[in-house]
Amino acid sequence: MEETFVPFRGIKKDLKGRLVCYKQDWTGGIRAGIRILAPTTYIFFASAIPVISFGEQLERDTEGSLTAVQTLASTALCGIIHSIVGGQPLLILGVAEPTVLMYTFMFNFAKDQKDLGKPLFLAWTGWVCVWTALLLVLLSVLGACSIINRFTRVAGELFGLLIAMLFMQQAIKGVVEEFGIPKREDSNQLAFQPSWRFGNGMFALVLSFGLLITALKSRKARSWRYGAGWLRGFIADYGVPVMVVVWTGVSYMPVNEVPKGIPRRLFSPNPWSPGAYTNWTVAKEMLNVPPVYIVGAFVPATMIAVLYYFDHSVASQLAQQKEFNLKKPSSYHYDLLLLGFLTLLCGLLGIPPANGVIPQSPMHTKSLATLKHQLLRRKLVNTARKSINKNSNLSELYDNMQQAYNGMQTPLAYQIPSSLGLKELKESTIQQASNSGYINAPVDETVFDVDKDIDDLLPVEVKEQRLSNLLQALMVGGCLAAMPFLKKIPTSVLWGYFAFMAIESLPGNQFWERILLLFTAPSRRYKVLEDHHATFVETVPFKTVAAFTLFQTVYLLACFGITWIPIAGVLFPLMIMLLVPARQYLLPKFFKGAHLQDLDASEYEEAIATPYNMTFGEDDSYSRTRTPQVDSSEVLDGIMTRSRGEIRHTNGSKVNGLPQTLIEDMKPAYSPRISQEAYSPRLNDLRVDKSPKSPGKGIKIKKSPSL
Amino acid sequence: MEETFVPFRGIKKDLKGRLVCYKQDWTGGIRAGIRILAPTTYIFFASAIPVISFGEQLERDTEGSLTAVQTLASTALCGIIHSIVGGQPLLILGVAEPTVLMYTFMFNFAKDQKDLGKPLFLAWTGWVCVWTALLLVLLSVLGACSIINRFTRVAGELFGLLIAMLFMQQAIKGVVEEFGIPKREDSNQLAFQPSWRFGNGMFALVLSFGLLITALKSRKARSWRYGAGWLRGFIADYGVPVMVVVWTGVSYMPVNEVPKGIPRRLFSPNPWSPGAYTNWTVAKEMLNVPPVYIVGAFVPATMIAVLYYFDHSVASQLAQQKEFNLKKPSSYHYDLLLLGFLTLLCGLLGIPPANGVIPQSPMHTKSLATLKHQLLRRKLVNTARKSINKNSNLSELYDNMQQAYNGMQTPLAYQIPSSLGLKELKESTIQQASNSGYINAPVDETVFDVDKDIDDLLPVEVKEQRLSNLLQALMVGGCLAAMPFLKKIPTSVLWGYFAFMAIESLPGNQFWERILLLFTAPSRRYKVLEDHHATFVETVPFKTVAAFTLFQTVYLLACFGITWIPIAGVLFPLMIMLLVPARQYLLPKFFKGAHLQDLDASEYEEAIATPYNMTFGEDDSYSRTRTPQVDSSEVLDGIMTRSRGEIRHTNGSKVNGLPQTLIEDMKPAYSPRISQEAYSPRLNDLRVDKSPKSPGKGIKIKKSPSL
Repeated sequence: MEETFVPFRGIKKDLKGRLVCYKQDWTGGIRAGIRILAPTTYIFFASAIPVISFGEQLERDTEGSLTAVQTLASTALCGIIHSIVGGQPLLILGVAEPTVLMYTFMFNFAKDQKDLGKPLFLAWTGWVCVWTALLLVLLSVLGACSIINRFTRVAGELFGLLIAMLFMQQAIKGVVEEFGIPKREDSNQLAFQPSWRFGNGMFALVLSFGLLITALKSRKARSWRYGAGWLRGFIADYGVPVMVVVWTGVSYMPVNEVPKGIPRRLFSPNPWSPGAYTNWTVAKEMLNVPPVYIVGAFVPATMIAVLYYFDHSVASQLAQQKEFNLKKPSSYHYDLLLLGFLTLLCGLLGIPPANGVIPQSPMHTKSLATLKHQLLRRKLVNTARKSINKNSNLSELYDNMQQAYNGMQTPLAYQIPSSLGLKELKESTIQQASNSGYINAPVDETVFDVDKDIDDLLPVEVKEQRLSNLLQALMVGGCLAAMPFLKKIPTSVLWGYFAFMAIESLPGNQFWERILLLFTAPSRRYKVLEDHHATFVETVPFKTVAAFTLFQTVYLLACFGITWIPIAGVLFPLMIMLLVPARQYLLPKFFKGAHLQDLDASEYEEAIATPYNMTFGEDDSYSRTRTPQVDSSEVLDGIMTRSRGEIRHTNGSKVNGLPQTLIEDMKPAYSPRISQEAYSPRLNDLRVDKSPKSPGKGIKIKKSPSL
Repeated sequence: MEETFVPFRGIKKDLKGRLVCYKQDWTGGIRAGIRILAPTTYIFFASAIPVISFGEQLERDTEGSLTAVQTLASTALCGIIHSIVGGQPLLILGVAEPTVLMYTFMFNFAKDQKDLGKPLFLAWTGWVCVWTALLLVLLSVLGACSIINRFTRVAGELFGLLIAMLFMQQAIKGVVEEFGIPKREDSNQLAFQPSWRFGNGMFALVLSFGLLITALKSRKARSWRYGAGWLRGFIADYGVPVMVVVWTGVSYMPVNEVPKGIPRRLFSPNPWSPGAYTNWTVAKEMLNVPPVYIVGAFVPATMIAVLYYFDHSVASQLAQQKEFNLKKPSSYHYDLLLLGFLTLLCGLLGIPPANGVIPQSPMHTKSLATLKHQLLRRKLVNTARKSINKNSNLSELYDNMQQAYNGMQTPLAYQIPSSLGLKELKESTIQQASNSGYINAPVDETVFDVDKDIDDLLPVEVKEQRLSNLLQALMVGGCLAAMPFLKKIPTSVLWGYFAFMAIESLPGNQFWERILLLFTAPSRRYKVLEDHHATFVETVPFKTVAAFTLFQTVYLLACFGITWIPIAGVLFPLMIMLLVPARQYLLPKFFKGAHLQDLDASEYEEAIATPYNMTFGEDDSYSRTRTPQVDSSEVLDGIMTRSRGEIRHTNGSKVNGLPQTLIEDMKPAYSPRISQEAYSPRLNDLRVDKSPKSPGKGIKIKKSPSL
């Protein structure tokens, strides 16, 4: 994206691009039929459980001014509007942790002000939202989103880790509170006697750790050895909501003599209870806010605007990564404008605003890629079967499939020249086949295995439409009606869920992985090379990696420290945004450009892992046989880091530079020998030698001739 | 061992063999110096914690007649005597779960008899021990141990799994009881109010699961990526006792308002408390037992004799596996005789007898192999360094090392012709070196890397001596003095430890692994081939494996069911022993001989795993570079299955038979293709093909020419 700041230009361009495909956004979704419900329910659960958890957190932190009713209402309302009139329908909106944190800061400020207090808190946040909306509209009009490419890993991952720390803090705080008497309740209840409080706290430990451990295990179900494939897939996709239900069930097991109120459960009024809907009419109280506070609301508003500008854009960016091969255009400017209006609306309704969320947004795109894959596959398999029955040769078969494939595309003006992936693969395969003399023979299933080969032919494509987003938002809205059921969830299960979210967000975060690398025993660092790993592991000296990581850690701790400062904590989004100029102007003074580029690559470039697959230049049969058998959804799982939802971009070409650094760092401990054949260009063949016959000692890297 | 049943012949032979090396058993131990404490403490912890747990279990099941004082005393006493006058000093003695179970059956019987009751229970067990001792002496004299080779996997592993089930049952029962009022206590105490009982139960869940999970994790410390090598080694070896201490510490964390008695702790009198030593004088009450019960004691005595005969011999067998290269002779007959006398002694003292325990006995041998390795290594490294400094050539270097090695051996009459391992390796290495022209050049560290190459030269040898066994038994005895500290351990931690023992005993049990295989998704069965795996996986059709496993499972459940029958449960050892003839005469009628042999191989034969190391006939450099870097204790860990302590005997030669069975069973699900190169004789290079260019479909196994 070019960096131009001509007012309205970005918005106009976005609108123009999206309007062309607006009709297809709906027809495409409807044509997918019943299958659209798979990605829809998947995203619904991923969206609803955190929002309910945040509701519980807000309920405690704002003394009941805001509850799960308001967070669910905001998520549903903003989601519905965005899915209908928003630019990028892949983007999922929701109330997020930073919003909860900002509202907590604001509540703590407001409740101590004589002229505001708890009664005018929501009215005052209304004014904050008014200012925020103004700023967001301004940013959008001026084209601030053009600089989105400057939001590099450094800032994004530090933000991610900060959120993880806040999640974990809330989880620990929540469990500790289970041992105490909640503020809002009558302390004379039976359940609040010391003995029952002790039991309640211990039960909370059991429930929260139970949820945490089973949820973490269930996420890995796809690679379990046991159980049928569909069951493992189901557990991997829906295991977490299922576990919430299971542990809620467990919480009902103690019945004898255990008083009501143990374990404690989600505290929220029903949306139809008296008092639960006072917030909706907050707009008319806004004029009761003293003018000095109306002006003062500008301070938190700038912070929220900075936060939303950053968060919304990054979420949108991650939902539209290059590797998804999206065909419809992006809409950063227009979506920021819409977010401004949504924030205004939420402020006037007295509910916390929603913005683009990570990791749900990229999860959404991924699930739609799986859907599109299924649809394409069904069509092509039928075509191929027909061709084979007609005794076509390989070339005719591909032509038929190409036609069928083109038929599945909607050739509109906005579309990139069609069917790149299919065509390229086809040509290389035909090349192969003609070399082997298969080209003119009638195709049978030994030459073209319908079930397997079509999977390999199909490029990643995404079912880009608005229906799944709209439906999931409606389902979140439906949760409001289900509030009596949601209130059966024990709070301790929610704390376990917070810890789960914190831990789940770590893998794939390169900052976190670098921290782990610092703690890896030097003799074990070679193990990093056995896995998929980022380029920097091979190209950047260990000391530089350590220094860079230390800098980031100190910065992270500073950010985390700021959130603890009672009112000034509101400034924390500023710290995150400051990293963008710091990365651009300050860091290059301390680190080499090439190192910085590898440590802060804007795309996730990874070197191919060492184990298992050895490539041999001449012997083609090996390279053909090296892919282990996995099902296609497991592959899609594999290429995507779980947390931020980034696509892993495996790229070996960068590795040719200076890859010995890590290996040299390993030297002091065990002096493994890497013999002549052990080092091939992609480090594919790294072998560590322990045999007594090798005529060398210590580290010896001899490059093979192919280098 | 030949199967002769001439009375006394076996005992005489054992005595003669062990007497020759008796002096060296002591001098060898003393010469090892301070280092002997490493295996000693390692085995002490592995021995003491279960014995304490069994004490707690007995205390509940016998209403306090027997406690941890008696189990510790028996283990220490029998251990001390066996280490001094026993035959095989590698064998570790201790009170084991089957003994606890038998005593529980006997208690339940005795307490309901008007003429016995609780007061005469120990006196009656004295008579049981008298009969048991008589039977054991008889078995020993008649040479019953000559048929030890007929105790195959089938019986041993079923026994192992039965014990695991009993452990798990006790763990679950123990935790459930934490919610109730213990029989022995005054139910009016504050800690037994419903509210505190609830808290106590929940706290027990936290403590037991905490211990279980951390203990399981710590066992795998050696392969962690983080932390220094020595720390990881320490955690792997001593993590479990450390965790018992840690969780005992955690149990003291709740202080405010929590009454004494929460959590409940190990219940045992101090050995010096009044009443704790009544059992020692039980012999004089034995004549008060009515004659009919003295005769009746013969029934449980036969069962205990069968049990001990089986258990003691198998433990001794596992401590003396072929792969340990032991140089001193075995002593099955004499040790069984001694066990008879020890049982008599224990009976007269009113303590439960101890017998040979699994997995502590093979763990003991293994830790002594590590010790011997360290001692040999130090000596040879010094010799090699000296030779290199003198500019010796390779041949001279090996001669010097051979001399030093021989100096470390004690050439006695009982010894196998010396230094086989060193010599063989030496010759092949010299052959190699002479081919490369290194043979006459002065050795430097590029030709012979002192630190690495000596590790490869050294054969597995074991520091066979009596000192470590004596010391660990004395330390167990020392626990009696430490009883006031042991009583700080919460019972819930012990329940967690029971669960830990159950789970830890599973891996390596082929019966268990076959059960898992039945539940493995057909499409995932290939994953079994990627790991070290038993031969049967490749040679026996899946249906046969399933049938055999089903038979064993039904038999196991029958055994487990019998233990639930109030008094007849005492017969369960008979069920185990019956498996030996059933295996020999019944099973061959239903299964093919070759299949039975593979499913019930008496040694643990495994096919080499697929991943990582590909061997190439011609290209020697590959075979030299394929060993990944691991430290030596990790290697020793790897070759030994954790539970039964069996050495894994990787043997590829058997695989040449009919290895497609498993792969064919995989066909229905994914039809992976195994292409031409993918199948080499040892299945080393198994690759599953997913590429579209491979000219085949479904399963195709083409044997490579070398087959």
